[in-house]
Amino acid sequence: MDDYKKIEYDRGYEFCCLVFEYLGIPKKDSQQIADVVLTSDLMGIESHGLQRLKMYYDGSKAGRINPNAQPKIIQETMVSAVIDADEGYGQIVGGKAMKLAIQKAKEAGIGMVLVKNSSHYGIAGYYSMMAAKEGLLGISMTNSEALVLPTFGRTPVMGTNPIALTMPAKPYPFHIDMATSVVPAGKIEVYNKKQKAIPIGWVLNAEGKNTTVAQDFINIRKNKTDGGLLPLGGTGETHGGHKGYGLSMMVELMTGILSGGCTSYYVRRDTIKERCCHMFMAIDYAMFGNKEDVEKHMSAYMELVRASNKSEGETRIYTHGERELSQFNDRKMNGFYINGKTYEELEAIAAEAGLDKQKYLGA
Amino acid sequence: MDDYKKIEYDRGYEFCCLVFEYLGIPKKDSQQIADVVLTSDLMGIESHGLQRLKMYYDGSKAGRINPNAQPKIIQETMVSAVIDADEGYGQIVGGKAMKLAIQKAKEAGIGMVLVKNSSHYGIAGYYSMMAAKEGLLGISMTNSEALVLPTFGRTPVMGTNPIALTMPAKPYPFHIDMATSVVPAGKIEVYNKKQKAIPIGWVLNAEGKNTTVAQDFINIRKNKTDGGLLPLGGTGETHGGHKGYGLSMMVELMTGILSGGCTSYYVRRDTIKERCCHMFMAIDYAMFGNKEDVEKHMSAYMELVRASNKSEGETRIYTHGERELSQFNDRKMNGFYINGKTYEELEAIAAEAGLDKQKYLGA
Repeated sequence: MDDYKKIEYDRGYEFCCLVFEYLGIPKKDSQQIADVVLTSDLMGIESHGLQRLKMYYDGSKAGRINPNAQPKIIQETMVSAVIDADEGYGQIVGGKAMKLAIQKAKEAGIGMVLVKNSSHYGIAGYYSMMAAKEGLLGISMTNSEALVLPTFGRTPVMGTNPIALTMPAKPYPFHIDMATSVVPAGKIEVYNKKQKAIPIGWVLNAEGKNTTVAQDFINIRKNKTDGGLLPLGGTGETHGGHKGYGLSMMVELMTGILSGGCTSYYVRRDTIKERCCHMFMAIDYAMFGNKEDVEKHMSAYMELVRASNKSEGETRIYTHGERELSQFNDRKMNGFYINGKTYEELEAIAAEAGLDKQKYLGA
Repeated sequence: MDDYKKIEYDRGYEFCCLVFEYLGIPKKDSQQIADVVLTSDLMGIESHGLQRLKMYYDGSKAGRINPNAQPKIIQETMVSAVIDADEGYGQIVGGKAMKLAIQKAKEAGIGMVLVKNSSHYGIAGYYSMMAAKEGLLGISMTNSEALVLPTFGRTPVMGTNPIALTMPAKPYPFHIDMATSVVPAGKIEVYNKKQKAIPIGWVLNAEGKNTTVAQDFINIRKNKTDGGLLPLGGTGETHGGHKGYGLSMMVELMTGILSGGCTSYYVRRDTIKERCCHMFMAIDYAMFGNKEDVEKHMSAYMELVRASNKSEGETRIYTHGERELSQFNDRKMNGFYINGKTYEELEAIAAEAGLDKQKYLGA
């Protein structure tokens, strides 16, 4: 890990809080954003951790995100709500929206809360885990800047549109948080920082050809040309590319369409604002049976899968969430690593914001 | 289409009804099963149409499905229910369960109905379309016989576990119905009947190697050996195989786990019964905004995607449901084609059930 630098969790968190306060976000809200960012790093999701701080920082400075946003509930029933985020931080309204979904699930069994006019909300899995911590099944989805190609198309018309779901189980919850594209955009950013070639089957360049150059994707995004990420399942239909494309459209429906907000094609387009939309759902599975039995059943099934026969040369089968959560506490205690280029980005932000680099970022 | 034979819709439907009546299913219920089967053929989903009649027929004869099943609601709230299907036909309890979900959605906004101890219910999309016909967003999932490999595994521990979702839109609804494996099992059955090689990346044989021989999969299923279908995203994690595996686990959770029924690993294992589980959800999007506006927004977005730039050599981008539904009425008026081997299976069933082959199946 020669190009990587270690960050202590407590200091990284405090640094992140202070950066958002510097950007004009109230202290409590800054803590919420920092918690989403640092949770990614603690889960080993480098792409969505401090690696993304510069994107948020630049977005705030450019006026893409409203620091004084006043989210408002504009529709509400016993099981549902629609919130207008007033162009604020996705992490702030996201936390509030999932809390509302949780409250509704506890009262009515299911809560489904949609958010429009928001901005990038970080890892989708942060919100589904909030529900699981309350003993509920949690689901979250978001649309995002159009970067993904439909089957047979060459213009990105869909976001990477992740789906996250968390279900309480032991020793780890079942926790999936997946872009409906082959990989999320942040993963290409990380490859680019590492100057590493990306595998064939991730990105088509502006000419519609497979590329292994991460920078090609960065350029597509910057210049809004044709080309982009392939949907899960890849090119064409033979290996199910139309399924990834369909899952992405499903997320557009559950977020931008149902909320009356924007679809990914219009996110960060035409105006300076982001305008993404999110969906949060909590389900109290007590309405289907004894909760403890349901959790035990899930745990036993995951154990059955992990214990099943391995492919040649493989020693383990992982269930979803295991790898992300098994090292969570260790990273919190002992720190985690960020890319040297990310570190340089943080240094530059520290200098601008007048924060003590040595104190927060270490050596 | 030299190996294919034409079937007139009306006669095929009547034939199907009479076969199920011969198997001891009441007339009205036989019509429901036949409607699910024939709807598949009308949508061009050959794998789940009359091609599957022999599987149902043999299953009934073998006692896998209870012809006198009395499904019972065993848990119920305003927004949810759990139904024990009493080992009956999935199509019968499936129709009833989605009707209940629709009724709950009309009253409370959302209805989520789970079914356990059921059997193969046909195309998942049949049920999500039922909700869309009532002006609701419909979702359905089912688990099924374990035929799919987890990432890094060689034993099938998950079913093909399809997800279906239908949302009203014009000129066609958004309608997705996808196995979470690269392809559904029925597609391999069709390739086998055609004696056609399957593409690399669909099936690993009992030794864990890629195979192009459809019969390898048929043998895995018959002999319950290692090997099976790859999850959407394929082998390993590079192209997202862990995502298809995770989606399949998500379906296990929403069906077998939450209902207190069986996971796919135990479907058709140890006992003669099938014991699959289904999930049905209906959402009245009136609770989020003006219904007509929401539908218009969805229609416009699908049109934007269809109209976007095409890949080199491609002339069309399809939205989900377009191909299945655009020829539906034509097939209903003018008939559809079934494989010669499927035709022979139907002839044998006709002979056993004492049905006039000439009258129902034509020449």
